Amino acid sequence: MKAEIIAVGSELLTPDRIDTNSLFLTEELNKLGIEVLRKTIVGDHRELLAEAFRDALHRVPVVIASGGLGPTEDDLTRETVAELLGRRLQRNEAVVRAIEARFRSFKREMPAVNLRQAMVPEGAEVLENPRGTAPGLWLEDKGRMIALLPGPPRELKPLFLEQVLPRLGRHASRVRMMHRELRVTGLGESHVEERIKPIYTRYKNVNTTILAMPGEIQIHLRSWSEDAGEANATLDEIMRGMELALGDRIFAHSGVSLENIIAQLLIDNHATIAAAESCTGGLLAERLTRIPGSSNYFLGGAICYSNEMKTAWAEVPAEMIAAKGAVSSEVAIALAEGIRRRVRSTFGVGITGIAGPSGGSEEKPVGTVHVALASPNGTKERLVHLPGDREAIRFCATQIALDMVRLHYLYNGRPQPQR
Amino acid sequence: MKAEIIAVGSELLTPDRIDTNSLFLTEELNKLGIEVLRKTIVGDHRELLAEAFRDALHRVPVVIASGGLGPTEDDLTRETVAELLGRRLQRNEAVVRAIEARFRSFKREMPAVNLRQAMVPEGAEVLENPRGTAPGLWLEDKGRMIALLPGPPRELKPLFLEQVLPRLGRHASRVRMMHRELRVTGLGESHVEERIKPIYTRYKNVNTTILAMPGEIQIHLRSWSEDAGEANATLDEIMRGMELALGDRIFAHSGVSLENIIAQLLIDNHATIAAAESCTGGLLAERLTRIPGSSNYFLGGAICYSNEMKTAWAEVPAEMIAAKGAVSSEVAIALAEGIRRRVRSTFGVGITGIAGPSGGSEEKPVGTVHVALASPNGTKERLVHLPGDREAIRFCATQIALDMVRLHYLYNGRPQPQR
Repeated sequence: MKAEIIAVGSELLTPDRIDTNSLFLTEELNKLGIEVLRKTIVGDHRELLAEAFRDALHRVPVVIASGGLGPTEDDLTRETVAELLGRRLQRNEAVVRAIEARFRSFKREMPAVNLRQAMVPEGAEVLENPRGTAPGLWLEDKGRMIALLPGPPRELKPLFLEQVLPRLGRHASRVRMMHRELRVTGLGESHVEERIKPIYTRYKNVNTTILAMPGEIQIHLRSWSEDAGEANATLDEIMRGMELALGDRIFAHSGVSLENIIAQLLIDNHATIAAAESCTGGLLAERLTRIPGSSNYFLGGAICYSNEMKTAWAEVPAEMIAAKGAVSSEVAIALAEGIRRRVRSTFGVGITGIAGPSGGSEEKPVGTVHVALASPNGTKERLVHLPGDREAIRFCATQIALDMVRLHYLYNGRPQPQR
Repeated sequence: MKAEIIAVGSELLTPDRIDTNSLFLTEELNKLGIEVLRKTIVGDHRELLAEAFRDALHRVPVVIASGGLGPTEDDLTRETVAELLGRRLQRNEAVVRAIEARFRSFKREMPAVNLRQAMVPEGAEVLENPRGTAPGLWLEDKGRMIALLPGPPRELKPLFLEQVLPRLGRHASRVRMMHRELRVTGLGESHVEERIKPIYTRYKNVNTTILAMPGEIQIHLRSWSEDAGEANATLDEIMRGMELALGDRIFAHSGVSLENIIAQLLIDNHATIAAAESCTGGLLAERLTRIPGSSNYFLGGAICYSNEMKTAWAEVPAEMIAAKGAVSSEVAIALAEGIRRRVRSTFGVGITGIAGPSGGSEEKPVGTVHVALASPNGTKERLVHLPGDREAIRFCATQIALDMVRLHYLYNGRPQPQR
């Protein structure tokens, strides 16, 4: 079965706003085995809106629309679709009462304009929306299904899951989408592609997408099938192949961030961490503390931008900085060991480098970063030359630091392969 | 003049990728006075692609398409548009040579498939693309203009600016778009709306968009006119009204971040800053060091997650933490003054609070944050109750800290209005 998504709203045709609801809707439709054939973004304009719906209904049996259900004159989705299908709009008293109750709960009177939101096309089912005033609408017409949903994502998402999915499920075929995800760090996109291409190209029924982000590659596998068992077996076979091809470069088998993986490893091992950062300016600490409950493993961090602070907070000898330079293996190691000693944590991380755009030299160009990890087993240090802009360099440097913690546990004291 | 944008690529119909080129294209088209009527996203599918182009050319005189110009069988934009306009594809030797030269510069042979990218519809102009192998194409047909551009943003953007804009400019009307932006912090969306609605609703020819982000509201004004002088005068009049209505809540008159504003203030005043952060976990330091050249004003920061570190790094007396609690005015002030003293900076920031989702109590619910700013004029402290999730609470807390620096300079020692 095929579907189209129509996002309605003149603000979506400005440079300021993008329709992101369609990513969520696509994911959910795909799970039901429904493929999205086209996405259309139209303004609040009666004829153009009517044309978009008419064309979509001509092509596919399922149309999901978001937006244009508000109370003002601009909001035309309800009226346009009713007219297109030749249905009269009728005032629905249950909806009127729900909107009135919502306003009462804020201790306000319902403005008269909101009555427009209670107008329902003949034969449409009202999809209650406790999170906003605009209810959704479900229409069936000559074998086609139309869902009209409010635009705000926090209203649209639960409404779709609770009320649209079950209705679609009744009509959808038995085809379902199965999905697998791998996340990889420490390898570039072309190297990942090189290693896994011989695997995934052998499976014509599986769609493979490789997404490159700074410091991370995501691999998505999707298979549509009526036979979930067979499709899952195929996906698992590909996964095993990719695991062999990518080895210890895989850090997650689902859509989870590297900082989340490290947080779980630290909690599971009753370990703690501290960081002394220079060029990353607190980004490593910020990533480690994004996660609820981070006080269980994160004790503290020092952002030692000035040389003086490297000495004061992480006990890096001033003579070492003078002799070796602030961007050096020695200083990275001293930062890691110093912060670990000061904070009395299991791990200490030291990062020093040149994030750019200025500050580079021939000997130490922009992107030169030293990352050190001090642990009960001793200290490891890596020198990397990172590509990209300041933001990418800083992010990749923290990615390498987190990955060193992951490899520490993966190899558990055994020798690690060279990178 | 009106335009439509077509984004081509099956990957744009998955849950993983969104078309963002259209935001850039819309901005640039708008500047030329060209309004975007519709955005369509289609897969690499010959009939559906042909239908999308046919319909768009039926509605508008300008169609800008991105994607589908690659060398593989999937890439159908060139062939589809040529067929639709009844033009034969001819091999362009200059393009062949350019692609060959590009491969030679990487010390590689040109694969035969890349010859497809040298096929040019009769009468089309080739838009050279030094950043990739796929050249863009410009076609004019019965008064309509079509630009076919490669999908990668780093290729599309310069190609559009250098080669498409001048061609469109020759045909565009004399209408131009004028734009103004204001950025506001410390006021919620509905309060901003309440204050400025009486102003902007008086101007029917100006489009006003209010975008709410955590800790920040952006206001965009756009006016289309043949008479730039008159439109600018109107926009300036609205801006003066909004400046009166929003007063010191405006932190920028362009699309610039608060950390950039603070960086410039610190540099202009030869001042330095240090931070002792608890619940924000390094986010303030990270924002202050995102900016190139931040070592001119940022000396260091301490992330004092544990009480012990609050004492060790920012000299907060252990008895104070025991008596008042780590989340208290007293500790925020002690953090700010302690870090300022330790780092010997002009400003010291202290942040302590409960970012959630757990850790809240009846007395100090999630979102309770104390922010203190120590300066040569003494120390100010604010207690705020921030809404939203962990991420929003952390971001807003750093926004408040940065805003306190801004207000310090704005009032320059004079009493500040209560918030």
